[in-house]
Amino acid sequence: MFVEKVKSAGLAHLSYVIGSAGEAAVVDPRRDCAVYIELAAAQHCRITHIFETHRNEDLVSGASVLSALTGAAVYHGPNPAGEVVYASTAVEGDEFGIGKVRLRVLETPGHTDDSLSFALYDTDFGEQAVAVFTGDALFVGDVGRTDFYPDRAEEVAGLLYDSLQKILQLGDQAILYPAHGAGSVCGSGMADRELSTLGYERMNNPRLQIERREAFIEAKIAEHHLQPPYFRHMEELNLSGASPLRHPLAPAPLTSQRFKELRQDCVLLDVRSASSFLGAHLPDSLALPVTMISAFAGWFLEPGDELILVANDTEQAALAALHLARIGYDRIQGFLAPSLAAWAAAGEAFGTLPVVDAHTVRGRRQEPRDDWTLLDVRDEEEFAQVSIPGARHLYVGELPGSLAELAPESAYTVMCGSGARATIAASVLLRAGFDKVDLFLGSMGAWKSVGFSTE
Amino acid sequence: MFVEKVKSAGLAHLSYVIGSAGEAAVVDPRRDCAVYIELAAAQHCRITHIFETHRNEDLVSGASVLSALTGAAVYHGPNPAGEVVYASTAVEGDEFGIGKVRLRVLETPGHTDDSLSFALYDTDFGEQAVAVFTGDALFVGDVGRTDFYPDRAEEVAGLLYDSLQKILQLGDQAILYPAHGAGSVCGSGMADRELSTLGYERMNNPRLQIERREAFIEAKIAEHHLQPPYFRHMEELNLSGASPLRHPLAPAPLTSQRFKELRQDCVLLDVRSASSFLGAHLPDSLALPVTMISAFAGWFLEPGDELILVANDTEQAALAALHLARIGYDRIQGFLAPSLAAWAAAGEAFGTLPVVDAHTVRGRRQEPRDDWTLLDVRDEEEFAQVSIPGARHLYVGELPGSLAELAPESAYTVMCGSGARATIAASVLLRAGFDKVDLFLGSMGAWKSVGFSTE
Amino acid sequence: MFVEKVKSAGLAHLSYVIGSAGEAAVVDPRRDCAVYIELAAAQHCRITHIFETHRNEDLVSGASVLSALTGAAVYHGPNPAGEVVYASTAVEGDEFGIGKVRLRVLETPGHTDDSLSFALYDTDFGEQAVAVFTGDALFVGDVGRTDFYPDRAEEVAGLLYDSLQKILQLGDQAILYPAHGAGSVCGSGMADRELSTLGYERMNNPRLQIERREAFIEAKIAEHHLQPPYFRHMEELNLSGASPLRHPLAPAPLTSQRFKELRQDCVLLDVRSASSFLGAHLPDSLALPVTMISAFAGWFLEPGDELILVANDTEQAALAALHLARIGYDRIQGFLAPSLAAWAAAGEAFGTLPVVDAHTVRGRRQEPRDDWTLLDVRDEEEFAQVSIPGARHLYVGELPGSLAELAPESAYTVMCGSGARATIAASVLLRAGFDKVDLFLGSMGAWKSVGFSTE
Amino acid sequence: MFVEKVKSAGLAHLSYVIGSAGEAAVVDPRRDCAVYIELAAAQHCRITHIFETHRNEDLVSGASVLSALTGAAVYHGPNPAGEVVYASTAVEGDEFGIGKVRLRVLETPGHTDDSLSFALYDTDFGEQAVAVFTGDALFVGDVGRTDFYPDRAEEVAGLLYDSLQKILQLGDQAILYPAHGAGSVCGSGMADRELSTLGYERMNNPRLQIERREAFIEAKIAEHHLQPPYFRHMEELNLSGASPLRHPLAPAPLTSQRFKELRQDCVLLDVRSASSFLGAHLPDSLALPVTMISAFAGWFLEPGDELILVANDTEQAALAALHLARIGYDRIQGFLAPSLAAWAAAGEAFGTLPVVDAHTVRGRRQEPRDDWTLLDVRDEEEFAQVSIPGARHLYVGELPGSLAELAPESAYTVMCGSGARATIAASVLLRAGFDKVDLFLGSMGAWKSVGFSTE
Repeated sequence: MFVEKVKSAGLAHLSYVIGSAGEAAVVDPRRDCAVYIELAAAQHCRITHIFETHRNEDLVSGASVLSALTGAAVYHGPNPAGEVVYASTAVEGDEFGIGKVRLRVLETPGHTDDSLSFALYDTDFGEQAVAVFTGDALFVGDVGRTDFYPDRAEEVAGLLYDSLQKILQLGDQAILYPAHGAGSVCGSGMADRELSTLGYERMNNPRLQIERREAFIEAKIAEHHLQPPYFRHMEELNLSGASPLRHPLAPAPLTSQRFKELRQDCVLLDVRSASSFLGAHLPDSLALPVTMISAFAGWFLEPGDELILVANDTEQAALAALHLARIGYDRIQGFLAPSLAAWAAAGEAFGTLPVVDAHTVRGRRQEPRDDWTLLDVRDEEEFAQVSIPGARHLYVGELPGSLAELAPESAYTVMCGSGARATIAASVLLRAGFDKVDLFLGSMGAWKSVGFSTE
Repeated sequence: MFVEKVKSAGLAHLSYVIGSAGEAAVVDPRRDCAVYIELAAAQHCRITHIFETHRNEDLVSGASVLSALTGAAVYHGPNPAGEVVYASTAVEGDEFGIGKVRLRVLETPGHTDDSLSFALYDTDFGEQAVAVFTGDALFVGDVGRTDFYPDRAEEVAGLLYDSLQKILQLGDQAILYPAHGAGSVCGSGMADRELSTLGYERMNNPRLQIERREAFIEAKIAEHHLQPPYFRHMEELNLSGASPLRHPLAPAPLTSQRFKELRQDCVLLDVRSASSFLGAHLPDSLALPVTMISAFAGWFLEPGDELILVANDTEQAALAALHLARIGYDRIQGFLAPSLAAWAAAGEAFGTLPVVDAHTVRGRRQEPRDDWTLLDVRDEEEFAQVSIPGARHLYVGELPGSLAELAPESAYTVMCGSGARATIAASVLLRAGFDKVDLFLGSMGAWKSVGFSTE
Repeated sequence: MFVEKVKSAGLAHLSYVIGSAGEAAVVDPRRDCAVYIELAAAQHCRITHIFETHRNEDLVSGASVLSALTGAAVYHGPNPAGEVVYASTAVEGDEFGIGKVRLRVLETPGHTDDSLSFALYDTDFGEQAVAVFTGDALFVGDVGRTDFYPDRAEEVAGLLYDSLQKILQLGDQAILYPAHGAGSVCGSGMADRELSTLGYERMNNPRLQIERREAFIEAKIAEHHLQPPYFRHMEELNLSGASPLRHPLAPAPLTSQRFKELRQDCVLLDVRSASSFLGAHLPDSLALPVTMISAFAGWFLEPGDELILVANDTEQAALAALHLARIGYDRIQGFLAPSLAAWAAAGEAFGTLPVVDAHTVRGRRQEPRDDWTLLDVRDEEEFAQVSIPGARHLYVGELPGSLAELAPESAYTVMCGSGARATIAASVLLRAGFDKVDLFLGSMGAWKSVGFSTE
Repeated sequence: MFVEKVKSAGLAHLSYVIGSAGEAAVVDPRRDCAVYIELAAAQHCRITHIFETHRNEDLVSGASVLSALTGAAVYHGPNPAGEVVYASTAVEGDEFGIGKVRLRVLETPGHTDDSLSFALYDTDFGEQAVAVFTGDALFVGDVGRTDFYPDRAEEVAGLLYDSLQKILQLGDQAILYPAHGAGSVCGSGMADRELSTLGYERMNNPRLQIERREAFIEAKIAEHHLQPPYFRHMEELNLSGASPLRHPLAPAPLTSQRFKELRQDCVLLDVRSASSFLGAHLPDSLALPVTMISAFAGWFLEPGDELILVANDTEQAALAALHLARIGYDRIQGFLAPSLAAWAAAGEAFGTLPVVDAHTVRGRRQEPRDDWTLLDVRDEEEFAQVSIPGARHLYVGELPGSLAELAPESAYTVMCGSGARATIAASVLLRAGFDKVDLFLGSMGAWKSVGFSTE
C-alpha cells in the first residue's frame, strides 16, 4: 500500500493517490489530472475510485475529468446546496475496498455541509486507522474555515467542533492527510510542515487545545477570512463538473503584430516577476507574477475574460496558464515573446514603476502633503496589527471596486508586507489612469527592520 | 529559419516543422501532434499553417487535430477521391509566407492524384529553393509507389515521372525532405540515410537514372507492393479528420481478475519481444512485438477491435498504445501487469512456442514427412529471390485469410527472414487451433549463414 | 518543513530528504545521489547535513559522494568495526539544526553496533517528535535482522530490544521512516505498506507484541536470514567511501563484431525478462532479469567482474547498469543491441530453455527415473514450509558453490515459487555444461493452485 | 545513416553526431557531452570517433571529456600553436569508417592553421559527398574570421580562399554542416537559416561571390571583429583538455545568511532579465541576463573568479551555470533564492536603475549640459553606421578597461541597440561607483522608430 501526495504550489492544495494490489483511489483531484493516472500506473495500479472531501471553493475539481478518463466512480458527501452531477453520494460508515486497503467514510461537516473525511485501514495488519484524509476539516496546525454560511456561523462552527472530535477518536497513531498546506487561503494558521498525525495535532494544534465547544465556536466566529469573488464561480463549476484541459496547455507565442491585432479585447497579464514589472512593462498590463496567480487572479479576473500574457519565455507562460486553468481561467490567446528591450526598440510605448525605499518614505512622511498618500494594501488583520502612521488602508483584492474613493490626480506610494502585493496594486492604479504612482520596495518588512516607528 | 524533422519510428514517417520569425508551418503532422506545438514554441513560433503532401494511406493524419489546437489552416492538394473536409485546396503556384520564408506549391501527382510538393525559399537570401518537401513523390534512394490506382497504372507512373522532373528543376542545391525514410511500407528501395539533396538524388537515386519516360513507367509497373487492409480505413479517416488522442494515452494496468472480466470480448495483443512470446505467453494471444506494430497490426486488426495488451511494463504498454493510435486503433481496455511467471504461479494456463535452429530444420527436411510443412511467411519477392527447397510460401499478412488452405492437424515450422515475422505468423496458427507449431529462429538468414543449399 | 522519501526499487531501500527554511539534510543516501540535490533545490534548500543510520551491508552508500558534491558533513554512529573515513561520529543526544527543524540522535544498536535513529522536531510547534528515522532498527511490520554478529547473537538481539523501547518512548504520534520497505533482504516480515507511526507499530508490529526481553531474544535467534557474499564487499566499501557514478551511466550499445571481441573476458548477463530467456538466449549467459538484479546479482558476481549485458534496448540496459552500480558492480563493457532473432539470423548460436507445467511435472514424478531431478531453488524456510514430494532442495544463491553435488549428465527440472528464480538457477546449470535442463513455469504456486499433493 | 545537430544557444555553436550501423562519430563536441552519448545510444550506436574541426577559441571543447567517457579517439588537425594533448593528428586525405559511412579529411586552413573539414560519404550509394562539416571555414551566408593571426592577415585570408575552393569542389549536392549559426561571435554575416548546401552557398553566400583571390583577401582584411579576453583562456584550455562538468551542475540555493557569509570574495552575477535588473537589484551585482552570458561573460570575468548568482529560480540558476561552464567558468558558490521583494523586506539594501525613453533623451540633448553624457556601448561598426548626434562611444566589453576615461561624478544615460547591452554596461558603471546612471530603453531602435535625427 502506498499514499502519494500531489501538491499544487500556489494553491497549496494537496491531493492523494492511495494504491494497493493493482487498484488506486484518488482523493480531491485537481483539474490537471494526468499526474494521478501516471502515479498509479507507475505502481501498476488502475484508478477505480475518486473521492471528494467537499465541494472546493478555491479551485476547479478534476473529479469529473478524471472519472471520464478512467471510468472510476466519484463519491461526494450529501450536499444540500445542489447536486454534484458527476458524483454518487457517500455517507457516514460507507466503506470502499481499494486492493487490500479499506476507506471508511466519516461525515465531518462544519467547513462545508458536505465535508467528508476518509479513514484508511490496512486489512492485512491491525484494526486501527493508519491514516485519515480530512479535507478542509483539520489541517496541520489549524482547522477549517467556517465563514461560508454567514447566517449559520455559530451552528457550523459547532458542527466543526463535533467533527474534529469524531476525527480524533481514530487515535493518535493515524497519519493526517489534509487538503491544504501552509500558504492556502483556506486557513491562516497552518504550520509550515507537511507531516503530522492525529496524535501530534491533538497535543499541539492550537484550535484543538480549546476544550469547550462554546469557546471553540467563539474563537471561530472571531476569525476574519477573505473571499475572493471567483469562489462563487468555483462553487458553481464544482457542482456541474469541469471541462478537460487542452493538451498541450502552453499558450502560443505571439509576434508583436499578432499581439497588436488581439490586444484590444483582452486583459493583459504580466506574469513576470515583480522586479521585471517595476523595471519595464507594457502599458495597461496587470502585474500578476506567476507565483501570485493562485492567490490573487481571482480578485481581478472575470470567468470569461480573454487574456494575453506577458512572460519571459515559453516555460513561464505555460506555468502561468496552468495556474490560471486550475482556478478556471482558460481563455488565453497567447503570450508576448519579445523582451521588453526589443519591444521598446521597435518604438513601442512602455511603462516603468519607480521604486522607493524606507528612508525615502520616511522623508516624505516628514513633509506631509495633501496630494500624497501612502497606500497600504495588506489585509485588514495585518494592517490592524502594525502599520506606518498616516498610511491609508485598502486591501489589494478590493482595490478595483474602491478606485472611486481615490483621487487619480494625487500621488500614491503603494506598500504591503514586502512590495509584492503592492506591485499588483500599483498596476491596478496605473491601468485606471493614475499617473503618479510609485512602489515602496521592502514595505512594512523594511520599515520595521530599519526601526522606524509604527502604530 | 529552421526545419525540424519529427520521425515516427516503425512507420518511418517523417514530418516537419518549418519556423521563421515567430511563425511556423507543419508538413504532414501525425496524430500525436503536441510535439509540433512544443517544437515551435521552443523557438518562439506559433503554428500558422499546416500542409499535407497527400492523403496518407498508412497512418492517421493529425492535421485536423493540430488545426483545432492552433487555429492554423490546413492545405491539401486537389483530391478527386473526395473532399478533405478539414482542409483548403492548394494548387500549383500557390505561395505561403511563414515569417520570412516562403513555401511554393508544386502539384506532383503520381503516387496519389492529390500529391503536392512544397519548395522552400529564404526571402532574405537567394532566389533558388533551399529545400523541398516531396511527400511520397521522391524519397532518399527511391520514388513513390504507384500501385494505388490499379486500373490507371501506366498513367500514374507517367504522372510521377513528370512530377519528378518538375521537382528536379528546383536545382541540385535543394535539400530533400520526404515523408518517409527507410523501413516504411511506402517504398522498398529507400536508402538507409536520412539526408539528401536533389543533386545527390539526381546523380544516385536508381529510379532517377532511368532516362526515358517509357522505361520509368515499365519499371514502376513491374514493382510489387503490399497493401495491408487498414489502408482503406486510413484513406477514409483522412478525408474526414481524426479524433484527438486521449491524454494520457497509456493503457491502465489490469489485475488478473479485471483482465479475466474483460478478456472475452477483446483481442489479446502480446507486445513483448518475440523471444518473450516464444518463452511463455497467454493462450490465444496474438504476438505483435511493439516494434512491429506499425508494419503489421494493420493486417490483423479491425478498426473497431477492442484490445487488451500483454506488456512487460507501463512504458512498453504506453508505447504500444501510441503505435496503435497512430494507425487508428484506439480501443485499448488496458494491459496485463503480472509477469508470465506470476500468471503461471496463480495456476493459470500459458503457452510456449518451441524453437528450432537451421540444423534441426535440415534434419527434418532430410526425412520428409507428409504431415510436416516448412512455412515461409516472407513476402513474395523475398521468397522468389531465395528460399529453402521444399518450403511452402504464405505471406504473414495474408495468413489469416488463408488458414483454410492449411491442415490444423499437420506440423508446421514457421520461418521468415530472421524469425520475427514468423513469430507473429506462428501465433496466428496457434490462435486458430494449430497445435503442432514451432519456430525456426534465425530462419533464412541462419540457413544462408551456415551455407545450406537454397533455391 | 518537508520530508521527501526516495525509494530504490529492487533494494526496497528508503532514503530521505528533510528540508526547512533553505537547508536540507539527507538520511542514508544511495550512490546515485543527484536526486537528493535536485529534490532539495526544487524546494530552494541546500544540503547541509548527511546522516547514516548505520553502515549498510546491502548497498553502496552515497554519503561520501554526496558530501563531495555539496560540502555537507556526514555523520555516522560509533563504529567498532573500523573508521568510516568520510564521516564524523554522532552519539546519543547530539542535535542538529536544519533550517527550523531539529534532529536528535538516539543510539539504537542491535542490527549493527553503529545503528543510530534520528528523532525529528519542529521548533515552531510542539515538543514531541514529529517523526523518527529508524534505519534498520524498526521497520513497518518488522524489526531489524540481528544475524551479523553470529558469536554475539543473544547480546545483539537484546540490544535491539532495548533500542526499540527507546524509540517507542518518542510517542505514538511520531511518523516512522525506516531504511527499508517490503521486498528488502533486510527483513522478511515487513508490511506491504509505506506508511506508519510509532503508535501503529506499537499496537500492530508482531515483534513489538513480544513483551519480555528474553522472549524477544529467543524469537530473533530463531530467525534464518541469507547473507549474499557481496555483503562483505559492501561493508568494506562503506567504510572507505564509494566512487561517484560515471555520467551518463548507460552502457554503450555493441555491434555483434565488437561484442565478439570483448566477450571472452566478460560475464554475460541477460537482463531481459525471464520469459525472454526461456524463449531464446545467448549461450553462456547468466539470466538475471533487471528486476531481480538487486536481490540476486550479489550471489553470482565478483566485485571485479567485467560484464556485458544482453538487453532489449538502451533503457533496459541503463536500468540494469543502475541496479548493478548501486551494489558495487561498475565494470560494464556495453550491451548487445541486436535482437535474438537478428543474432540468430546472422548464423550465431543461441540457446533455449524448455518450459514445462505442473501436469508435465506430475507425469514425470509418476514414472520416477534415476536420472531426473526436480530441483527446488527456493530458500530453506520456503522449502520447509511446503514442497513437492521428491524434490531436491538447493538455494539458488548457493547453486554456484554446490554444482559439484549435481551430476551434469542428469536431467533437471528447475522450480522455485513461480519460475523466476528457477530461470536464474537454470541458467547457472546451463553455463556449467548441464544440457538436460528445463524449467517448471508456475512452480510451487501452480502446483498448489491445481491442487496436487505437497509435503 | 543519420546526422543529428546539437545546438548550443547563446554560443550558436553547432556540433554533430554522425551514426551508422552501430557506430557513431561526434564533430566538435561541447563540454556538456552526455547529450552525444544519449543521442547515439537512442539509435543504438556507440561513439567510436571524435573529430575537431579546429581549436575553438570561443568555447570549451568537450573532446577530451567525451573521449574519457567513451574510449573514442580524438582527431585534430596539425596545430603549429602547440600539441592538442588528447588528440591524434589527422591530415589531408585521411579516411575514417563509421559503420557504413566514410569521413574524408580536407585540410582547410585560414580561420586557424589547424582547420579541417570532413566530407561525408555513403558507401552504399553514390560517389559524391553527401555532406561536409566545415567548422569555422564556411558558414551559412558567411565565411570564417581571419583575424587571429594579425601579423599574417593577408596570408591566412588567402589560405581561407583556397580552402573554400577546395570545399566547393565537393559539389553542389553536399549538405553544409558548419560549427556555428547566426548569433555567433565567429561571424557577423551569417544567415538566420539553419540549412544549406554547397550549391546554395556557391550561388548566394556573399563572400563566395567574390571571384578573385585578391579581392577576397582585401575584403577579409577590412573586417573588424571583437576578441573578448576569455578567448586566450579557451585556446590554452583546448590544448590541454577540459575537466568534466560536475553532475548535477545546478548551483545550490543560498539563504540570505549563507549568501552574506560568501559574498565578500565573490563576483555577484545577476542573471535575471534586463527588466528585472532595472526594477530592483542587489548592490554591486553585475547584470548578465542568462541569454547574454555566452556573448558577454568573457569580457567581464576572469577564469578563476568565484561567482554567486542572483536568479529567479533554480532552473534559471542551472541554465546560467551551464552557459558559464561552457566557456570555462566553473566556480559558482550558489545562487540567492529570495525574491528582491523579500530581500528588501528583510531590511537589506537594493538598487534600481532608472529608465528613460527616446523623448526624454531628446529633451536632454536639447539642453546640453557638461555633466551629462549619452553613452553608446554598441560595437564600433554599429556606431559608425548610425548614431545619435552627440553620443559618446565605448564598447560594452571594453568598458571595464576604460572607466578611467569617464568621470564618476557625471551623469550618464547608457544606450545600445535596444537597451539590453546597455543594462550590462550600466551595471558596470554602478559597480564602479558611478551614481547618476540611467538607461535608455529602446535605445537606437526606438530613436530611429520615432524618427529622430541620426548621424
